[in-house]
Amino acid sequence: MIKDFREVVDQYDVVFFDAFGVLKNSSGLIPDIEKTFDYLVANDIEFYILTNDASKGPAKLAESYLVKGLPLVTEDKIISSGMMARDYLKTKVKGGKVAYLGTKESAHYLEETGLHAVSIADVDINHIDDINALVFLDDEGFDWFKDINKLLNLVRLRNIPVIIANTDRSYPVNAKEVSIAIGSIAEMIEKITGKKFIKFGKPDTNMFIFAYQHTAKAQELGKQRILMVGDTLNTDILGGNKFGIDTALVLTGNTLMENYQMRIATTGIIPDHVCESAVISGYSKIL
Amino acid sequence: MIKDFREVVDQYDVVFFDAFGVLKNSSGLIPDIEKTFDYLVANDIEFYILTNDASKGPAKLAESYLVKGLPLVTEDKIISSGMMARDYLKTKVKGGKVAYLGTKESAHYLEETGLHAVSIADVDINHIDDINALVFLDDEGFDWFKDINKLLNLVRLRNIPVIIANTDRSYPVNAKEVSIAIGSIAEMIEKITGKKFIKFGKPDTNMFIFAYQHTAKAQELGKQRILMVGDTLNTDILGGNKFGIDTALVLTGNTLMENYQMRIATTGIIPDHVCESAVISGYSKIL
Amino acid sequence: MIKDFREVVDQYDVVFFDAFGVLKNSSGLIPDIEKTFDYLVANDIEFYILTNDASKGPAKLAESYLVKGLPLVTEDKIISSGMMARDYLKTKVKGGKVAYLGTKESAHYLEETGLHAVSIADVDINHIDDINALVFLDDEGFDWFKDINKLLNLVRLRNIPVIIANTDRSYPVNAKEVSIAIGSIAEMIEKITGKKFIKFGKPDTNMFIFAYQHTAKAQELGKQRILMVGDTLNTDILGGNKFGIDTALVLTGNTLMENYQMRIATTGIIPDHVCESAVISGYSKIL
Amino acid sequence: MIKDFREVVDQYDVVFFDAFGVLKNSSGLIPDIEKTFDYLVANDIEFYILTNDASKGPAKLAESYLVKGLPLVTEDKIISSGMMARDYLKTKVKGGKVAYLGTKESAHYLEETGLHAVSIADVDINHIDDINALVFLDDEGFDWFKDINKLLNLVRLRNIPVIIANTDRSYPVNAKEVSIAIGSIAEMIEKITGKKFIKFGKPDTNMFIFAYQHTAKAQELGKQRILMVGDTLNTDILGGNKFGIDTALVLTGNTLMENYQMRIATTGIIPDHVCESAVISGYSKIL
Repeated sequence: MIKDFREVVDQYDVVFFDAFGVLKNSSGLIPDIEKTFDYLVANDIEFYILTNDASKGPAKLAESYLVKGLPLVTEDKIISSGMMARDYLKTKVKGGKVAYLGTKESAHYLEETGLHAVSIADVDINHIDDINALVFLDDEGFDWFKDINKLLNLVRLRNIPVIIANTDRSYPVNAKEVSIAIGSIAEMIEKITGKKFIKFGKPDTNMFIFAYQHTAKAQELGKQRILMVGDTLNTDILGGNKFGIDTALVLTGNTLMENYQMRIATTGIIPDHVCESAVISGYSKIL
Repeated sequence: MIKDFREVVDQYDVVFFDAFGVLKNSSGLIPDIEKTFDYLVANDIEFYILTNDASKGPAKLAESYLVKGLPLVTEDKIISSGMMARDYLKTKVKGGKVAYLGTKESAHYLEETGLHAVSIADVDINHIDDINALVFLDDEGFDWFKDINKLLNLVRLRNIPVIIANTDRSYPVNAKEVSIAIGSIAEMIEKITGKKFIKFGKPDTNMFIFAYQHTAKAQELGKQRILMVGDTLNTDILGGNKFGIDTALVLTGNTLMENYQMRIATTGIIPDHVCESAVISGYSKIL
Repeated sequence: MIKDFREVVDQYDVVFFDAFGVLKNSSGLIPDIEKTFDYLVANDIEFYILTNDASKGPAKLAESYLVKGLPLVTEDKIISSGMMARDYLKTKVKGGKVAYLGTKESAHYLEETGLHAVSIADVDINHIDDINALVFLDDEGFDWFKDINKLLNLVRLRNIPVIIANTDRSYPVNAKEVSIAIGSIAEMIEKITGKKFIKFGKPDTNMFIFAYQHTAKAQELGKQRILMVGDTLNTDILGGNKFGIDTALVLTGNTLMENYQMRIATTGIIPDHVCESAVISGYSKIL
Repeated sequence: MIKDFREVVDQYDVVFFDAFGVLKNSSGLIPDIEKTFDYLVANDIEFYILTNDASKGPAKLAESYLVKGLPLVTEDKIISSGMMARDYLKTKVKGGKVAYLGTKESAHYLEETGLHAVSIADVDINHIDDINALVFLDDEGFDWFKDINKLLNLVRLRNIPVIIANTDRSYPVNAKEVSIAIGSIAEMIEKITGKKFIKFGKPDTNMFIFAYQHTAKAQELGKQRILMVGDTLNTDILGGNKFGIDTALVLTGNTLMENYQMRIATTGIIPDHVCESAVISGYSKIL
């Protein structure tokens, strides 16, 4: 039941792509993926990248695609869960400081809110009265032992909104090893404190709505003309299905050729299409 | 920190109300709640009812408000999780039969999809090849022992989308007793089969987006001008907060005066306002 | 790495068997399983049946083995999770009534406690002050809709110990279909009420300890001389491992030849031995 | 319904005590608790300490009681979840290395097993073929970022038994702050990998059985003559109840005078007695 990606994509006017496992992996870009974007542009198919990566802003993310050889993935094409967190803070947190777990680079999202962003590493647990929100952004940029324990006490001692900008549990660092993602740390703190955090990122439909609302074409033509392409059943495919658009599973990341059928059967998460990859390999830009 | 509902509501242009525990309870309408709607109309504040009730269609729900003495809650003001399920089926299920758990009345949502709706009670487990989706609508209208077991086997034997139109776990039947809601039955089947179902209803933000997209005023003025009013922290308030609108907790349903502070502190779900009820008692319509 | 069951069993002095999926399935006895018991007796290897079945007492269970052609599995060889529940009630509930969910036959366990057993079907929810415990025994013998809802309210209105005599989530009724087991119903009520129930049955080690304490030989020779044989990784094998005895997985029930290696790898539950079945087929009793 | 501890204790022949929150807290010993032990000795009531603390061996734990002024709590009176883990490794792991998360001091338990213990900090993830088990012992003694990520990959890459010697989620470090306990770290890794770990410590009944089997008096007189004293409903009281002995909740730790009734009602975990503390304050040793 494996289909050719070109034939699939020809049925739609707008395509949403997941990033990791679809466009790139821990070694760099998926070979020839740039041909897919040449094809989309040539055929007037609009595209967006929907990523659970809140470790950098869209400008930095776009820069990394440019460097790797994918100049068509520009800043305005990238929608990240960090942007959802930013919008939440803008509308719901009226002032004061927002503490964050992550690198200075990830705090980029917070600066745009007008709130004073402070790294958890710089928080003094005895002076927390002006901290009005806490955001999980990235798994680096702090001392795990000291700062995760400090964060736990901040959540216990102050009743403020806590936002998880990325609910992924782990991510690959190379062909063999994975790393714990911020979503797992947040889930652990939620369990210990019994509090409910506010979660952004696929499979939650927020990011799909955000993308939809920024695509005049999609709104005009309707959801039937949009395709979500992803490598992960319980984020990309589940979220796309729930939002009511068609979904295509590709086998270049979390889900493998050898077990995709079993995975679909055991999870009950059913993509509309399955393709080996998102590469349109035969295509060459006409110069 | 208890505020007067009138003073709260005056700060907004659009108000979303939960139904059960806010407008009505197991005894009928909350006394004087009709005055609130007179006030909203007189002051040009738009309103919608956002309910996790998928047991009847909006027309039937509106009829029940009319009978009880609340004629201003008309069909077009009601947004239910059943409507989310209906839209999903319309866009994602291409043909065939859709099986449902619920009364014939709840199946109203399915008829509008053009799919052939069949009650789980009428399904023959040996002939299920043409069933392309399953929907949990209501806890009545079938034999629990026979039909919940049949449904379990349908989910095991056929890999189709399964939709939960109401994720509530229980609902009150009188001042003392509660009943198991369809959300609990669905969760049990999910656990047994290990499959992921598609869930609609608060705290999921789908219903908020649906309401938002149907309110020209809200879209023009922005989310800052909308208030969500509910009695339940982990559905109404969590969902409203996540959608990025202000929230008001009322103490006429699931959350009580004697423990609302403790509940807010232990769950970390923080409403922007707390009011005794949604009643604007001092108000009288000028004739 | 599949081993011959005879060679495995020769290394031990005492063997604990799971029942369903090891000795019998929905069609009856596993063919030739009686030869295994002839072999054990001839070789002076002691055996016990450890079953999560609380639907009947040991006498009735033994009778069913006799009828099927396995006379060596006598009443004194059977240890069931119902016996754990019985012992709990004997020591912890001082008097009054104990309500139960199940058939009159399953209530056998309760009669031995000296408490007055009353079926949930016969409970009047307005007169529950003398009910001092509640036990989940079997999924039949009551009206699911009426009585499970009544039970929910009993748990909410009276703070009494609630005992689950069987934590299995489902059981096979024929080659194609399964039925919801009492463990799933209990788990649903636990979720709705937020209360903690007391659970007996594998993988909990209680039943292993009970068996161990009734086996003079095991106590004398030590745990190293005991083998647990089961078809289910997360009950039989997990429980046996945790109790500190060797474990053998057989492939005649829940775990199949085609996926046992994948199941062991994904769950991390590792049996010491894997055998096609518990049958010692080559063996004939010397007359 | 608060009872005097002396009157409660007089009804039993053997008493099991939890340590933290009952005998001591983050400031040191509970004032006058030594009088309780004088009383027990004078009245020939046997006692044991049942602790989920696997960070040190019984000798070190006893030493700390001696230093604090409680010389009657000697090494032979202490039963810890680390001892359960040690026994598991002794019977179930046949050779090779056992990796551990914790301090060198916590590894004391592993040395007694004859296995070669290696700190996760010293594991080379490219040479793990001789590691045959992994044990979570303590939250200190390693680099959280580097070593917890390394441990995650060890669990993914090698299918070996993983043992959690302490399932507590957090512990108090002073009157205001808590620290993340090893049980939370283990639970996070379990979630990420989907594997089932082997858990020791209350509420699991293993530790109660171990204590019971080491008390000739208890075995002779029966479970009815044993009392479990603890400050935590979901470990001490739940575990004691399940084991079938009487339980007493004290209000000097996790459960407070102001909310113990609410906690008992919401959890459904019901102690047989509630006492302000385990102190028998009026008692003076006769010299």
